[in-house]
Amino acid sequence: MKSWYTSETDGGMFISTRIRLARNIKNKPFPSHLDKKTAQEIAAMVFDIFNSGKIKHDFDTFYFNDLSENEKAVLFEKHLVSADFLSKSDLPRGVVISKDETISIMINEEDHLRIQVIYPGFKLKEAYDLARKLDTFINEKTPYEYHEKFGYLTHCPTNTGSGMRASVMLHLPSLTYAGSIDNILSSISKLGFTIRGLYGEGTKAEGNIYQVSNQITLGKTDEEILRNLSDIINKISTSEKDITKQLYQKNDAMFKDRCMRALGILQNAYVLSSSEFIQLASDVRNGIDLGIIKDIDPGALNELLVLTRPANIKKIAKRNLSADERDIFRAQFVRERLKQK
Amino acid sequence: MKSWYTSETDGGMFISTRIRLARNIKNKPFPSHLDKKTAQEIAAMVFDIFNSGKIKHDFDTFYFNDLSENEKAVLFEKHLVSADFLSKSDLPRGVVISKDETISIMINEEDHLRIQVIYPGFKLKEAYDLARKLDTFINEKTPYEYHEKFGYLTHCPTNTGSGMRASVMLHLPSLTYAGSIDNILSSISKLGFTIRGLYGEGTKAEGNIYQVSNQITLGKTDEEILRNLSDIINKISTSEKDITKQLYQKNDAMFKDRCMRALGILQNAYVLSSSEFIQLASDVRNGIDLGIIKDIDPGALNELLVLTRPANIKKIAKRNLSADERDIFRAQFVRERLKQK
Repeated sequence: MKSWYTSETDGGMFISTRIRLARNIKNKPFPSHLDKKTAQEIAAMVFDIFNSGKIKHDFDTFYFNDLSENEKAVLFEKHLVSADFLSKSDLPRGVVISKDETISIMINEEDHLRIQVIYPGFKLKEAYDLARKLDTFINEKTPYEYHEKFGYLTHCPTNTGSGMRASVMLHLPSLTYAGSIDNILSSISKLGFTIRGLYGEGTKAEGNIYQVSNQITLGKTDEEILRNLSDIINKISTSEKDITKQLYQKNDAMFKDRCMRALGILQNAYVLSSSEFIQLASDVRNGIDLGIIKDIDPGALNELLVLTRPANIKKIAKRNLSADERDIFRAQFVRERLKQK
Repeated sequence: MKSWYTSETDGGMFISTRIRLARNIKNKPFPSHLDKKTAQEIAAMVFDIFNSGKIKHDFDTFYFNDLSENEKAVLFEKHLVSADFLSKSDLPRGVVISKDETISIMINEEDHLRIQVIYPGFKLKEAYDLARKLDTFINEKTPYEYHEKFGYLTHCPTNTGSGMRASVMLHLPSLTYAGSIDNILSSISKLGFTIRGLYGEGTKAEGNIYQVSNQITLGKTDEEILRNLSDIINKISTSEKDITKQLYQKNDAMFKDRCMRALGILQNAYVLSSSEFIQLASDVRNGIDLGIIKDIDPGALNELLVLTRPANIKKIAKRNLSADERDIFRAQFVRERLKQK
């Protein structure tokens, strides 16, 4: 498997699918009440699981605080660790990441374990199956906090029950232009789902990219949640397609103009901010989906979505860059990646 | 010779040089007091001069009112007739235009004859020599109103004397950005010169293009006027180059970015207004002059300066276009002309 942001994807409306399971080890205080020694023991225990047998070649295990600030931010920009994980903590916090970056486990975030699988495209079942396999694999070595009636116990009550959050990242330019996102939010929130921006809670939907995910885990089976989410995603994507078609039929020149100008700018700019990139990339993605732009690899846009972020750009440049230098380096990087084939 | 707007030019700061001589036929009332019959006789007489001998193959002669409104506007956009000539008149007004569009003679505009030569680039002497040759050629067949003391007599006193207006069209982006055009105007107006926009008096300097010309004709020899104008143009172009160099050294990424984005948009847009074209073309021209843009023919920009104007676009399309359709057609025309070589 390839990471969600590699260029091996088919592009289009569906960017990625993520399953996250919250689990806690039996008879240990939750991280909010954990002492350093026990936190360290939990991390070491999980590291051991992934450092033994033949799977050890597939995973990296490390303590998050050993990383530089930029390395931490790189992982956040790749959605491999959460925003919460970036905030300072005295506890030893561990990370297990598969070499292909489809699996990441945060140790001692809000819960002892946050097991996460991200796949490119819309693949709820596949991502869930892998997450559960990992879950079972870990559970075989160590018992979890589990309550007959409530299910998995977690720090935050919104995660108690299945402990699962399933989310799909979607590109919804037409629904955004039509101003329909708030309507979607209000109708899906009644069903226990929500819609957020690219980098989760409280972030803007930069580049018309949204994450749709479940809010409720208690009293629902995983299967119910996944089925409902799948239905919602299908409905949203159908209405995105319908509106796009209507708008395109009404004014195809305006559509072509917007998509092609965006591509022209990305292929030629010498100074490019992260937020301008993501807006223009949205128009280019739209152009690819509509068949207007044919000679650009749609997967390159997913890749650039992550690689043009400030920390990733700094990592690629392999040196410290001022904000101005970063915009120049980003422009060059994007020009090269989006060269006419 | 090629017309000023063909792609045979070397691009750069100097777009075109124009010499215009105002002349009136001896013992005939000026056009403001002319009857139709005499006006017709004057036009026919001038037509005869250019329809005889071997030069007749080099010129077209016609009555301006026989043209459609669009054909009239095409000639105006090419700077072959004046804005005044476009306004309605009951008088028979004639036009003589050389096939290569370097020479145009308006008959019964404000004066009986407006003899004009326009060359691409900065060629004051060459343009003046040709205009005088035409002037002498006509004068051999018919005497002019000429006063020993005042020189050539004209309808408007600002033209009396030499009857000559010499002007150079220049691209001055850096002086414009630096806000120096008003200073230039105030310093050259003391010397009897002025600076105007692309389409003459009262028009905006779209695309950072200006015409510098003499205001005073009385009491100056043609040679003095041409020498002074030449000095002024050299001074202006030197300071344009100096400022550009300073700005470029200060922030080359910003310059590259602006020029390359402009090119990217022109090569990709599907909807393009005339005024957006001219602004973006200014940035591209700047990029060519600075050596940032190498694979675009600089002369193509001069050509597009005229051919993207509304009447010319309509003529090229060979059909009636709404304003929206014109913007789409213009975008396509520009895309094709500015394709990467």
